[in-house]
Amino acid sequence: MAPAAYRKLAGLIAATFTPFTPQGEVNLSVIGPYIDYLSEQQGVKGIFVNGTTGESLSLTVAERKILTEEWCQKAKGRMDHVIVHVGCMSVKDSQDLARHAAQTGADGIAVIAPFFFKPRTAEALREFMKEVASAAPNLPFYYYQIPALTGVNVHVRDVIEGIEKLIPSFRGVKFSGCDLMDFGQCVSYCQADWSVLYGVDEQLLAALAMGAHGAVGSTYNYIGCHVNKLLSAFEKGDLVQARAIQFKMQELLSYAMKLGFDVGVNKQLMAELSGLCLGPPRLPLMPCPHDHAQLIVQKYHSLFSKR
Amino acid sequence: MAPAAYRKLAGLIAATFTPFTPQGEVNLSVIGPYIDYLSEQQGVKGIFVNGTTGESLSLTVAERKILTEEWCQKAKGRMDHVIVHVGCMSVKDSQDLARHAAQTGADGIAVIAPFFFKPRTAEALREFMKEVASAAPNLPFYYYQIPALTGVNVHVRDVIEGIEKLIPSFRGVKFSGCDLMDFGQCVSYCQADWSVLYGVDEQLLAALAMGAHGAVGSTYNYIGCHVNKLLSAFEKGDLVQARAIQFKMQELLSYAMKLGFDVGVNKQLMAELSGLCLGPPRLPLMPCPHDHAQLIVQKYHSLFSKR
Amino acid sequence: MAPAAYRKLAGLIAATFTPFTPQGEVNLSVIGPYIDYLSEQQGVKGIFVNGTTGESLSLTVAERKILTEEWCQKAKGRMDHVIVHVGCMSVKDSQDLARHAAQTGADGIAVIAPFFFKPRTAEALREFMKEVASAAPNLPFYYYQIPALTGVNVHVRDVIEGIEKLIPSFRGVKFSGCDLMDFGQCVSYCQADWSVLYGVDEQLLAALAMGAHGAVGSTYNYIGCHVNKLLSAFEKGDLVQARAIQFKMQELLSYAMKLGFDVGVNKQLMAELSGLCLGPPRLPLMPCPHDHAQLIVQKYHSLFSKR
Amino acid sequence: MAPAAYRKLAGLIAATFTPFTPQGEVNLSVIGPYIDYLSEQQGVKGIFVNGTTGESLSLTVAERKILTEEWCQKAKGRMDHVIVHVGCMSVKDSQDLARHAAQTGADGIAVIAPFFFKPRTAEALREFMKEVASAAPNLPFYYYQIPALTGVNVHVRDVIEGIEKLIPSFRGVKFSGCDLMDFGQCVSYCQADWSVLYGVDEQLLAALAMGAHGAVGSTYNYIGCHVNKLLSAFEKGDLVQARAIQFKMQELLSYAMKLGFDVGVNKQLMAELSGLCLGPPRLPLMPCPHDHAQLIVQKYHSLFSKR
Repeated sequence: MAPAAYRKLAGLIAATFTPFTPQGEVNLSVIGPYIDYLSEQQGVKGIFVNGTTGESLSLTVAERKILTEEWCQKAKGRMDHVIVHVGCMSVKDSQDLARHAAQTGADGIAVIAPFFFKPRTAEALREFMKEVASAAPNLPFYYYQIPALTGVNVHVRDVIEGIEKLIPSFRGVKFSGCDLMDFGQCVSYCQADWSVLYGVDEQLLAALAMGAHGAVGSTYNYIGCHVNKLLSAFEKGDLVQARAIQFKMQELLSYAMKLGFDVGVNKQLMAELSGLCLGPPRLPLMPCPHDHAQLIVQKYHSLFSKR
Repeated sequence: MAPAAYRKLAGLIAATFTPFTPQGEVNLSVIGPYIDYLSEQQGVKGIFVNGTTGESLSLTVAERKILTEEWCQKAKGRMDHVIVHVGCMSVKDSQDLARHAAQTGADGIAVIAPFFFKPRTAEALREFMKEVASAAPNLPFYYYQIPALTGVNVHVRDVIEGIEKLIPSFRGVKFSGCDLMDFGQCVSYCQADWSVLYGVDEQLLAALAMGAHGAVGSTYNYIGCHVNKLLSAFEKGDLVQARAIQFKMQELLSYAMKLGFDVGVNKQLMAELSGLCLGPPRLPLMPCPHDHAQLIVQKYHSLFSKR
Repeated sequence: MAPAAYRKLAGLIAATFTPFTPQGEVNLSVIGPYIDYLSEQQGVKGIFVNGTTGESLSLTVAERKILTEEWCQKAKGRMDHVIVHVGCMSVKDSQDLARHAAQTGADGIAVIAPFFFKPRTAEALREFMKEVASAAPNLPFYYYQIPALTGVNVHVRDVIEGIEKLIPSFRGVKFSGCDLMDFGQCVSYCQADWSVLYGVDEQLLAALAMGAHGAVGSTYNYIGCHVNKLLSAFEKGDLVQARAIQFKMQELLSYAMKLGFDVGVNKQLMAELSGLCLGPPRLPLMPCPHDHAQLIVQKYHSLFSKR
Repeated sequence: MAPAAYRKLAGLIAATFTPFTPQGEVNLSVIGPYIDYLSEQQGVKGIFVNGTTGESLSLTVAERKILTEEWCQKAKGRMDHVIVHVGCMSVKDSQDLARHAAQTGADGIAVIAPFFFKPRTAEALREFMKEVASAAPNLPFYYYQIPALTGVNVHVRDVIEGIEKLIPSFRGVKFSGCDLMDFGQCVSYCQADWSVLYGVDEQLLAALAMGAHGAVGSTYNYIGCHVNKLLSAFEKGDLVQARAIQFKMQELLSYAMKLGFDVGVNKQLMAELSGLCLGPPRLPLMPCPHDHAQLIVQKYHSLFSKR
């Protein structure tokens, strides 16, 4: 069972970057200021750590653990939700991380579909997740779907069918795909204490119309304050205003994508906009060419006047 | 220039099926009753003929012409818009059909991206469309994007950049893809007299939130009356009601897809629901197994109580 | 039944380009000299006309007919085999062209899998081909597989299982894919009077090892004389020599591909090397940038010394 | 520099399965008998351990180390080559495993392309591999390409261009793709002490014709003795005999694939044929349905008479 204090996940959740030193080692000292920045400058009250944006698959298990510890400690009293991604190719590593997240005081764990041997059926994916969840049975559990990266195209709606019987701690989905029929059916099906969160920032408004309960994404690290206004406008039924913000996000991201937007470029963009020292990405990501980041920063300022 | 009487395309447009005799020949006699059905039973006032749903690529040029003539004649005074799809692999065939559509009194023409040799760039696609449009310069011209079938993934936003200089009769897009960033950017960019219409029926609500001006799809042949309610609810800001209808559509289509939903099955479904004799599909589509159609009809009735 | 004079298809078959005037109209006057060139300069004795290389899908049915007539007439007595590709999206157009090919004296017809509505099963594809073949029952019939362009991935081995019962005139496959397990199983299964021809020129040697009876490709238009030496070397068991030629072909094509090799560039390359006036490609193919063709010509000469 | 005793990799290399207990823990006790079986029953003198077949990505780093130790120890004096796959998503884990393999006495290491963040360029992939190789600079290093599983489609030929300057210990490629143009260009380019090994067992003969120096695959665990005959036949220029064996392999694998062939099914097949207790696969692979394995075993016996 989830703890009594369980708060349903909602609103904006920033998928955090992992700070590195210039030499490429994990840099824990940036995490405190990072949380300050999110909370004070962006109005973001939830984080999703060690996910895609956090380069988790490029980290060792030991690195993921010390990062989890630091994020959880520094977030205490400042963030409403710290969700720790514990997905690995090895179910044993994932169990290890799940157990550790529970001991560390995370508010929930999430698991990506394994993607070397790709589960062919919802059943295989459910079995994998059940094994992981069983190592931290009291921690809210989320399935993290991101088919563009995993190549796993099993419908989420099939995955969550009666999943509470297999995984009593199941609490929802981070849905980072473009199949909004599948998304809508998840919203339509989901239990009262589940959250269906959307993860494709550039089309968040579409998912809100379809009933999304919140959003998890990397851009909320630096445009969270603007997207909070999008959420408010949507809440008030002001689609014109909501669209205006969404279209700016699209213009920014589409511009960045033409320059070759990956987590490395994204990390540099965050560093420039926040002033935090995030360091380079780790291989196989290549360092962001400096002028690319500069051009995107300029585009950002032309679209979103400084607050 | 488009004619003075040009009305901006909006609302629901049914992508019509092509009626065949049991022997597989074009059956013009069904077209009059078909228009009655759409107009009277479904409240649909626009049609998109000889498109994907109409199996146009499986028809000869001569067949497409007689169909165009019959649809235009029977729709006169009953439909607000008759858009004729004239896309072919051969630009010469497309020009021939465009000229014919103009002579026949169509309200507009649409062209799919050629998909054997796939245009690699927006420029190549624009050149192709320019050649076709030039054969019917006074007819509103629409680009029909459907990447799942064509494999052409050029961003529509890039295609429509300044396209009015190349194609003065350009009036919009039938966007049948799931990339709602590209879609949103089209909405954001488009000129006052252009229409950005959405073509993935099962996630229409998402596109409406993003600013869609209307919708073109096959399911509006038989659930148009319900989707008109979805449109009204959305217009009034009643997202709860709009979602309820959208979720039913998703449940129907997802059920059908598990049974192997293609244009052949879809055609049989329409025949069962409307009572029109639509005949079999043409090869390479295979006839719909009777029990599949029956099961989907039952699902339909369980979801949408008879009006 | 196939005619008594049936000769099993083998050796090198050039997939011919369609000559256009500078204005983009079919240019029949080049066809005679083209055949002279193939026969005298390249030692090629078979042609596959109106295929992918011939831009057939970009032609009208009428154009395909006059081309067929001219190729058949000029090839008489000079070519051992004239295979006419009659594949279309519309089974009716294909039947029309099949009938015409029979009347014109072609030695065989070939059909590509329809690729807008893609056959989902071998059965649907077989039904489509059966309909076409039945319009020219005395003409040897070949299935033309090219999954990279059609997106149809049905195994050829499944397509040809007992196909002689459906299509008595069936005589083989032009296999233009990279799945050499499927290819090998076709070779292993095929009847004595069938031919399994390979269509990926840059890895022909691999298919020969697997038992290919011959090859159909666009590069045999201009390196046929060299590839004939590859065939001879292979026949004699001289793999070192065969590989040396194959590696040169690979170097040429890989160089061309980095420059953006498509049928338009390929056509220009043939024009430069043969001196034939082939004209531009037709939209959606874009004209080949002149310097690209020049660079590839230089590469050609550096690899293959002039004969 | 590679050690003085370096022997160029060639011939058949079995990609070994990882034995588990029925409870899913690594079962070292099977490794000795496994090596006996390969050596005595299959005539196989090289192994590739902790690769795809060995479910390495589903193992923890610690498990991979104890497996490496056991394979190296038991192979001593019995196998000519023990290549240890050390590829991980995390470059740090890979370096750790590379260092360990060097200490353990492996004959070489191999690295798969990272496939969560997929290298976009040959350069990014080379940088990743350089980091790993630098942790074991005296150990022959091989790039393990398997695009169907990784989704990384960078041409191998581009990867190996001048790679000896970046990675002095580079000694070759395990090429498990179907692009035999790329393969041929690797063979054509490679240095005298490199090996280009092929990894798609069902079309090995094609790669041999293109100049493959050897083969690494899972089926050599149980049909190595037959494939050794294929190699001998090919060596003698007896393509008829070589094809006969290759076609049987294709028939077996194509039959298995129709039943849903994955590493789990493959492992069960090996267990049945060898009598070794290999245990179940690990999640996300599901246990092989017993009757599937039985059917494939029967097919095996019908194709390959017992020795």
